[in-house]
Amino acid sequence: MADRTHWFPARLTELDRAACLELLERSEAGRVAYCGTDGPVILPVNHVVVGGDIVFRTAAYTALARDIRRHRAAFQVDGFDADTRIGWSVLVRGPAEFLDAAELARLDLRPTPWVEGQRTLVVRIRPTEITGRRLVPA
Amino acid sequence: MADRTHWFPARLTELDRAACLELLERSEAGRVAYCGTDGPVILPVNHVVVGGDIVFRTAAYTALARDIRRHRAAFQVDGFDADTRIGWSVLVRGPAEFLDAAELARLDLRPTPWVEGQRTLVVRIRPTEITGRRLVPA
Repeated sequence: MADRTHWFPARLTELDRAACLELLERSEAGRVAYCGTDGPVILPVNHVVVGGDIVFRTAAYTALARDIRRHRAAFQVDGFDADTRIGWSVLVRGPAEFLDAAELARLDLRPTPWVEGQRTLVVRIRPTEITGRRLVPA
Repeated sequence: MADRTHWFPARLTELDRAACLELLERSEAGRVAYCGTDGPVILPVNHVVVGGDIVFRTAAYTALARDIRRHRAAFQVDGFDADTRIGWSVLVRGPAEFLDAAELARLDLRPTPWVEGQRTLVVRIRPTEITGRRLVPA
């Protein structure tokens, strides 16, 4: 196990909304969280940013599909370097909704799931809050 | 923006508990999720695995400290390659609790936060569920 007592002091700086959106757009995948009946769940998904919203696909029969609809969700991307222990993270919070056929037709870009199988549900998280932090050398 | 229509079909395989624990121990940082009053939150933390539990530190005055105590939490680690689009993820779910001084004294390893400042609260998530998946070429 790595020596976790040897570390570089770092401090957190806030990222503005533009920087957060750029990091969200640059990232190919992130993690979605929702609150199930027995607590939170975090799952990796590949996403796209469309008009400032987070869009990803899932299968219709998943717990995610059952529990995320019409509830508030979170979406997160980050990047860390374990050696230097610096990095960044961006958190999006907002309601999640399924896109219907008409809305899908209007979108010119939809995420293609990395995993095989039918992932017919397209989920959109409309951010009510976007926050980000960067860990920089102190 | 990357061409997201060109991708490699992949399939998900389940990881057993031993593989999940190994990936949790190898990872220096992950993400904790909790359900706040206005929906889920995902935050990066550096962690250690102690006796099969996830242990990390936070500051006493954070929303995390306020909302995670005695509630169910989730902790997640993953690793992905955006070029090959293969990777893995591990999800831990369970109740979160603060460690008291007696319990801290018994632990021989405590995570040192990467970020500066007082992070005096030590949080332990006792897994009631550990699941993991690996995305492999189909």
